[in-house]
Amino acid sequence: MNKKTSTPTMKDVAREAGVSLGTVSNVFNGAQVSESYKIKVEEAARKLGYKVNRYARGLKTNQTRTIAFICPGTDHPFFADMANYISKALQEQGYRMMLAVTQYSPDMEQKCIQMVTENKVDGIIALTYNPDLIIDENLPFVSIDRFYSESVPCISCDNYAGGTLAARKLCELGATKLLFFNIAPAVSGEPDKRQAGFESWCRFHNVPFESIVSSDDQAFRPFLNLVRDRIHDGKPDFDGIFCNTDKLAYVICQILKENGISVPEDVQVIGFDGINMFGDNMMPCVSSIVQPVEQMALQAVSMLLSADRTHLPTLTCLPVRYRPGGTTREDFVKEYIYGNGEKEPN
Amino acid sequence: MNKKTSTPTMKDVAREAGVSLGTVSNVFNGAQVSESYKIKVEEAARKLGYKVNRYARGLKTNQTRTIAFICPGTDHPFFADMANYISKALQEQGYRMMLAVTQYSPDMEQKCIQMVTENKVDGIIALTYNPDLIIDENLPFVSIDRFYSESVPCISCDNYAGGTLAARKLCELGATKLLFFNIAPAVSGEPDKRQAGFESWCRFHNVPFESIVSSDDQAFRPFLNLVRDRIHDGKPDFDGIFCNTDKLAYVICQILKENGISVPEDVQVIGFDGINMFGDNMMPCVSSIVQPVEQMALQAVSMLLSADRTHLPTLTCLPVRYRPGGTTREDFVKEYIYGNGEKEPN
Repeated sequence: MNKKTSTPTMKDVAREAGVSLGTVSNVFNGAQVSESYKIKVEEAARKLGYKVNRYARGLKTNQTRTIAFICPGTDHPFFADMANYISKALQEQGYRMMLAVTQYSPDMEQKCIQMVTENKVDGIIALTYNPDLIIDENLPFVSIDRFYSESVPCISCDNYAGGTLAARKLCELGATKLLFFNIAPAVSGEPDKRQAGFESWCRFHNVPFESIVSSDDQAFRPFLNLVRDRIHDGKPDFDGIFCNTDKLAYVICQILKENGISVPEDVQVIGFDGINMFGDNMMPCVSSIVQPVEQMALQAVSMLLSADRTHLPTLTCLPVRYRPGGTTREDFVKEYIYGNGEKEPN
Repeated sequence: MNKKTSTPTMKDVAREAGVSLGTVSNVFNGAQVSESYKIKVEEAARKLGYKVNRYARGLKTNQTRTIAFICPGTDHPFFADMANYISKALQEQGYRMMLAVTQYSPDMEQKCIQMVTENKVDGIIALTYNPDLIIDENLPFVSIDRFYSESVPCISCDNYAGGTLAARKLCELGATKLLFFNIAPAVSGEPDKRQAGFESWCRFHNVPFESIVSSDDQAFRPFLNLVRDRIHDGKPDFDGIFCNTDKLAYVICQILKENGISVPEDVQVIGFDGINMFGDNMMPCVSSIVQPVEQMALQAVSMLLSADRTHLPTLTCLPVRYRPGGTTREDFVKEYIYGNGEKEPN
């Protein structure tokens, strides 16, 4: 973005202006400085294209030790977990977390950024759905799941690898005719790569598959119709489904069961997210590709607070894992009932 | 982004508007100022892109417009919903919410209160498990579900009425031999009244019942053993269970099903909380007594921010309602699949 390979520093400005570093610092921190020095420093800064790094300044003097986390709302367990882990991570670093909820409204997202900026926070972690978000480049900002620009680090799980893992697991567990189900989101983001990973694995391994992506406002009805259309004499013409989210996987399991199809005996289903019932990590909703929410939160906090933010990676993808949850043909012991690792005889 | 190297200050606005600094300050602090001055100042602020620093203003007039919400963690959906609604309610009032998570640690709870107090918040809403919490009486404080003292207003749902409602519903739906299940919490609180309400209704209506309260660290195993002990020739000697939480109700349903008992055909189960799968209010986990979480959040915010806090009620109990969720013998249409109010022909 800059023509120069390195960004000018306060030291460069001091050298150019022929004044001490302390004088430059005083000028930018609003301390008493004679007018002639002030003019020299400001001219030098302009010439070099030096931008006041408000965050760096904040670290020294005006720090609020407050970080804002902006997300659609903690009513969805993925956002709720993220808020929880970010809050914990910040508290451990002596920071506190502001929570701003946006209810998926792009306007609200921009407003929240405005609000937290006015209120002087040291940085923002955001999970947003507004592709046109205006982000003040002087304010440290880490995005989750949505790529904005080279200057805004984005953190997500490895969605592509998750898609391939789901396809591979379904096949390893005996499925031969696969479906991919998704309700298309309004804006593109890292999670779109789940489908790409799934399809790529199937093609490479010559596994027949079909991808069905419904539009958002029709919700689950299209899947109900589709499932019914494809059951002939009580037998479905597919035996494995990868759903883009656990929520969709859960609903698909309900639809299958209500239409006389056994899960996981007739059809195996894998979701994505790793949502736990009641937030209890012993209680998976469905078999799933689990997002490493805690690691994502730690990474976001660590990047946001890192002293040198000039060489942060543009995109950081953290590893996912597969976890059985009763909707795949696999030993699944309900540990919350039978105890950890304890196998029920039956 | 700005052409100027430094952010405009109140002084710049005063210069631009041709008024005194005091006048600018008065305008932004809502003091009496003639309309013509107000327009001048606001125009100048807009022109310069001046942002009100609410945090700094708060420090002077002793208001930060920040409220802390302290809870065990947003990993549990009840706390996550509460955080969500409190955040929304505060945002609508021009306040922002700090989220502090305590992981059920009494020490952490005290530390959080200390921390948010030091960091100057205008008030605290807390969902705590420390009966010996020291609360600064100069700081507005509203407690959820835990009674501290006459000077700390407590907000909860009407837990007692919820207990009676559960007993009544089970009987109306045909149950005749009832059980109450609970895992005892470490500290007493408003939710204890659920059992009292349930038992009182059963006694008054001569309905046979039994209450089984397990201690926390044994988790669900005692209920598994108990349920098995009470199934004779495949038939349980009870037909209705009221569980103190939805989580327990969900687990009990799993235990019953795994032991060959049909829910709701053989045994009906009602939980308490009104937890939604994936935070979607069309997707109840179990049949439940629903807490009015949004109303509780609004009430907490309104009490905390009320100008006169001298006559606040000590305890405010908001009405609960019963909601079918598939674990009671009742028409239960899965609206998230079949559409709102739409009945599936089958």
